[in-house]
Amino acid sequence: MNNPALHVLLAGRFDPAEREAWWRALTAAAPECIWQRDDAPFDREVIDAAVVANPAAGLLASLPNLRFVQSLWAGVDKLLADATLPVHLPIARMVDPAMNAAMAETALWAVLGLHRRFFDYAAQQRQVQWQQLPQRRADDVSVLVLGAGQMGGEVAARLAAQGYRVSTWRRRSAVSLLEVVTGQGIVVNLLPLTDGTRGALSAAVFAAMPRGAAIVNLARGAHVVDADLLAALDSGQLSRAVLDVFHQEPLRADHAFWRHPKITVLPHVAALTDEPSAAQVVAANLQALARGEPPQHLVDRSAGY
Amino acid sequence: MNNPALHVLLAGRFDPAEREAWWRALTAAAPECIWQRDDAPFDREVIDAAVVANPAAGLLASLPNLRFVQSLWAGVDKLLADATLPVHLPIARMVDPAMNAAMAETALWAVLGLHRRFFDYAAQQRQVQWQQLPQRRADDVSVLVLGAGQMGGEVAARLAAQGYRVSTWRRRSAVSLLEVVTGQGIVVNLLPLTDGTRGALSAAVFAAMPRGAAIVNLARGAHVVDADLLAALDSGQLSRAVLDVFHQEPLRADHAFWRHPKITVLPHVAALTDEPSAAQVVAANLQALARGEPPQHLVDRSAGY
Repeated sequence: MNNPALHVLLAGRFDPAEREAWWRALTAAAPECIWQRDDAPFDREVIDAAVVANPAAGLLASLPNLRFVQSLWAGVDKLLADATLPVHLPIARMVDPAMNAAMAETALWAVLGLHRRFFDYAAQQRQVQWQQLPQRRADDVSVLVLGAGQMGGEVAARLAAQGYRVSTWRRRSAVSLLEVVTGQGIVVNLLPLTDGTRGALSAAVFAAMPRGAAIVNLARGAHVVDADLLAALDSGQLSRAVLDVFHQEPLRADHAFWRHPKITVLPHVAALTDEPSAAQVVAANLQALARGEPPQHLVDRSAGY
Repeated sequence: MNNPALHVLLAGRFDPAEREAWWRALTAAAPECIWQRDDAPFDREVIDAAVVANPAAGLLASLPNLRFVQSLWAGVDKLLADATLPVHLPIARMVDPAMNAAMAETALWAVLGLHRRFFDYAAQQRQVQWQQLPQRRADDVSVLVLGAGQMGGEVAARLAAQGYRVSTWRRRSAVSLLEVVTGQGIVVNLLPLTDGTRGALSAAVFAAMPRGAAIVNLARGAHVVDADLLAALDSGQLSRAVLDVFHQEPLRADHAFWRHPKITVLPHVAALTDEPSAAQVVAANLQALARGEPPQHLVDRSAGY
C-alpha cells in the first residue's frame, strides 16, 4: 500500500497472558501497522487508531489525532459510558464469526439442557435419584431470542435448525417485550445494554411468560432485576435461569445466585473472544481505515450499540 | 383394504400409564387392526403380529400363527436374548425420526458440554468458584461416532453442522476401533449391543485415545467395562464420561458412578420413544404386512441388530 503506516495503540485492562495473546495475534494479523501498547511508554501524538478492551476512562480523549476505535468486545456499553469519549469518534464493535459461533453454542447448550431436562437430571444425580422425566419434541418448544443483530441471528438460526419454534425480538420492534414473551417457554437474552434495555427482564416480563418458563441471559447482568428473578424462581413462575452475566463480575461469593437450585451460574464465558479470529476482523478494519474506506460494524452512538 | 384385518398383540413390561399411552397411540394409528393386549385375556391362536417392549420370555414362541414382531425399542438385544424366539420370525427394530432427533439432541448437548467445559463450570458453581477456562473452536474438536445406522448418521450430521470434526465407525469397518480412536477428543457410542461389541469400551481403547479425552455412552451399559472406565478417569487418561446406560438399570444407589466427580449419570433418557411418532412407524409396518409387502427395518439375526 502507498498509504503511510497507521500508528495503532492496544489499550485496556487485560491480565498479562491475555495481553500477550492479543499482542501476538494483532501484530501478526496487521504487520503493516506500527503497534504501540498502553502498558509501555508511547507517543500520544502519533496514535491514529486504538484497539481497546475496557480502556482507562479518559485515555482515548487524551489522544489528539485518534480517528478510529476498534472494540475487542461485542458489547460497547462500558466504553460509551466514558463521558470524556469524543462525540464524533468512530467506534467499531467486535463482530466476529468465531464469537457468534461460540455464543450460538452456549445458547444451544442451554436450550437443549432446559428442553431435555438435563439440568434437572444433574440435580437428580446429586441426590442419587433415577427418574425419567417426560420428553418433549423440539417443535413443541418455543424459544424467543432477544436481540436480532448478527449474534442474535446466528443463535436463532442454529436453534431453528434443531427444530425449535424460534422467534426474535429487537427493542425497535413494533410490539413490546411484554406482548412478545407471552407463550414463550424459553427466552434467550442477547440484547445490547442501553438505557432502553436496562432492567428489561423484570417481574412484569416474568409474569407475562407461561408458568414454568425459563430464561437464559448471555448479554449483560444489568438487563435483569435480580430480586425479581429470585422471586419468580421461588414462586415457580420461572423454572430455571441460566446466567452468564451479572451486575457485578466476578459474582460475589455471597450472592444468592451461586447456591440457588434453579440458577446455573457461568463465569461470563458464553462467548470468549477468539484472538486469532478477532485479530483478522481488526486487521480488516485497520486496512479499510488506511485506504480511506469506512470500517465495518460502526456503533450508532444515538442507539447506544 | 380387502385384506382381512390383522390381529395384533401389544405385549411387554410397561408401567400402567406407559401401557395406556401406547394403547391409545397404536389403536389410533392403526384402527384397521384388531388390537389385543397381554395384560388382559386374549386368544393366542389368532395373533398375526406382536408389538413389543421387553416381552416375557417365551411369550412370542407361544403364539402359533405369529408372523411378525415389531419392537418398540431401537435396541433388540434383550429381545434376541430370548432363546425360545422362533428363528425365522421377522423382527423389526424401531427406527423413528423423532427418536433419532432426540438422540441427536442428547449427543449434541453432551458434546457441547464437554467442548465448552460446561460440566466443569457446573462443578465450579458448586464450589462458588469464578474461573474462565480456555475456549476452543468447534473445528478444533474431533468427535468419533460409533455406529453408523440411521441414528448414528443423524447424530453425526448434527454434530458436523455445528462445525465439529466428525467421523463415524461401524464394527464391520476395515479398521479396528483401537486404530480409529487415536486422536479423537470425544467418542459417542451408539453401537448395537452384540457379541462383537460387548465390552468394546475397555482399557485398551481408553489408552489409545489422547489424554484428557471423553466418552459419551448412549447405547448400552454392557458396551463399557466399568472398572476400566473408573481407572481411566481416576488416572486422568479420560477427563469425563457422560453415561445414559448401565449394566444394571436403574443404576444401583451404591454404584461408584453416581458420586464420581467426572461422571455424568442420566437415567436412560437419551431418546425416550415418542409414542405418537413411533405408533405411525408401527402402523406403516402393519399395513405393509397386511398388503403382503415386507416391513421396514427388519433385524439381521446373524448380525444381531
